[in-house]
Amino acid sequence: VDEFELIQKLTADLPKQEHLLVGPGDDCAVLDLGIPGKQLLFKTDAVVEGIHFDATADPEQIGHKAIARPLSDVAAMGGTPISCVVTLGLPPGFDPDKIEKIYGGLKNTAARFQVSVAGGEITTNPGQIFINVALIGTIDCGRVLTRQGAEAGDGIFVTGELGGSISGHHLSFKPRLDEGRWLAANFPIRSMIDLSDGLSGDLPRLLREGLGAEILARAVPISREAKLRSRQTLTEKTPLLAALTDGEDFELLFLLPRGHSVALLDGWKKQFPDVRLSCIGTVVAREGIRIKDQDRSWTLKPNGYVHFKKPQ
Amino acid sequence: VDEFELIQKLTADLPKQEHLLVGPGDDCAVLDLGIPGKQLLFKTDAVVEGIHFDATADPEQIGHKAIARPLSDVAAMGGTPISCVVTLGLPPGFDPDKIEKIYGGLKNTAARFQVSVAGGEITTNPGQIFINVALIGTIDCGRVLTRQGAEAGDGIFVTGELGGSISGHHLSFKPRLDEGRWLAANFPIRSMIDLSDGLSGDLPRLLREGLGAEILARAVPISREAKLRSRQTLTEKTPLLAALTDGEDFELLFLLPRGHSVALLDGWKKQFPDVRLSCIGTVVAREGIRIKDQDRSWTLKPNGYVHFKKPQ
Repeated sequence: VDEFELIQKLTADLPKQEHLLVGPGDDCAVLDLGIPGKQLLFKTDAVVEGIHFDATADPEQIGHKAIARPLSDVAAMGGTPISCVVTLGLPPGFDPDKIEKIYGGLKNTAARFQVSVAGGEITTNPGQIFINVALIGTIDCGRVLTRQGAEAGDGIFVTGELGGSISGHHLSFKPRLDEGRWLAANFPIRSMIDLSDGLSGDLPRLLREGLGAEILARAVPISREAKLRSRQTLTEKTPLLAALTDGEDFELLFLLPRGHSVALLDGWKKQFPDVRLSCIGTVVAREGIRIKDQDRSWTLKPNGYVHFKKPQ
Repeated sequence: VDEFELIQKLTADLPKQEHLLVGPGDDCAVLDLGIPGKQLLFKTDAVVEGIHFDATADPEQIGHKAIARPLSDVAAMGGTPISCVVTLGLPPGFDPDKIEKIYGGLKNTAARFQVSVAGGEITTNPGQIFINVALIGTIDCGRVLTRQGAEAGDGIFVTGELGGSISGHHLSFKPRLDEGRWLAANFPIRSMIDLSDGLSGDLPRLLREGLGAEILARAVPISREAKLRSRQTLTEKTPLLAALTDGEDFELLFLLPRGHSVALLDGWKKQFPDVRLSCIGTVVAREGIRIKDQDRSWTLKPNGYVHFKKPQ
């Protein structure tokens, strides 16, 4: 049983509720609660010791990651985060100083993005630390960016650089909230997702039946860490394969209809001069993800990070 | 370190945010998001295998409990629940059928109270099942019932019957949502809480410095299970002590100013003929909780259920 099959099974027969505009299966749920001009975003996300961070990781970075992950999901909808509640599951005999540092890192990141910590609870979780952050946010009506809407011909864009996140980026990444909002406000973005399971795992989630993608290998922004890890043989992957399949980049991946690319890339350079934006390929009317190199082309399998199968 | 000291330490220096009307320390957080005439309630709550339920518990009841607990917190504010998101932490090698039944129980209870399951996530949690439910709800402006506001002379009321919840009630209880809303709408309730840590643990949370309570022993509604467990020597507590100190009753405990008791008890009988409502004592201007028996009086220590100290 993999994570996504199980989720589909569990959520298959949920009753429809009028207030629920987007339910399970997108980066955040979207609800209509009657806020004039706005819709509510709602998300839950957990990090677990030994799965999402090592016991030796910097405690403040652990707290940062716990909230930055759902913040990244709000970014992927084009939204603004508002408030969170935090559940701490702690093993008996936990170190109170470490927990205080973890919570400190979480609070700092919350404050940096004007998110309130509205409440929480602490419970026992034998074996390892478990941190769940539930987050609400808002988005202007009609502006929400879901994973639906891809059309053949759309350009495929990605922020930042990909791969090698395990070297440290997964603990220190900055959720792309400003970028997500700016994209939603200024361009007819077709659909967007944040990269948590690798491009190979997440790009298919933007593509409905009958659609695929052609990716230009030389256009893929490969991170310094992915190259370094390959050179130091810390991974068996080539830097390109690492960029295409490594998990937890937390960059934005989005689709834009033809004809807007030049305006987007120009505007981006002015708005976010320190963040790379790359057009890496095109949506095509043929299933599968094909990587086009100078002299060959090959098909990318959706073998990104999948829980239960390949714990990181 | 006990749970409440740690929470106080962690949440002591949170920055103020204008939208946050009630922050950590009450049954739910209360937020102003600009919904006309309404405020938002926000709550997170977890149940963990071995702590809040046994591995042998009925899976559907486990799912019920996971959502009924935060529903009970919404009831304690006088609110209406709207939507939830669910995090499942599952050990490797979990039984998918059991997880489906747990989720089924959760979905049934959600549907019964018109709550949507808006999303969720599944992650690995080695060792035991961990279920977190984050819940949002609403309450009419000016109607919210917090834990603040007690005054000497207030009557102390409790719904249902207390004690012996471990025999089964903790897995099958019905959150008092209708009752909470009706109380908030019709009576000048001073403050309210749901009983999760026992009356001895939760009543002090309604009493500010300088206030205490006098409880009439014969007025305390003792459950059949508390009596049975005492008779069968499943507990060393007398039935009265079980009713005063056992955890997870999930009944409503509230304070009402003098002069409204008769109207409340009369109205209650018509509205909720199958649910007991008891006036068990009075708030007094002297600290401590004193239990008055026919021939003696004694002080109740706040030794209800406390995480980390006395796992159930």
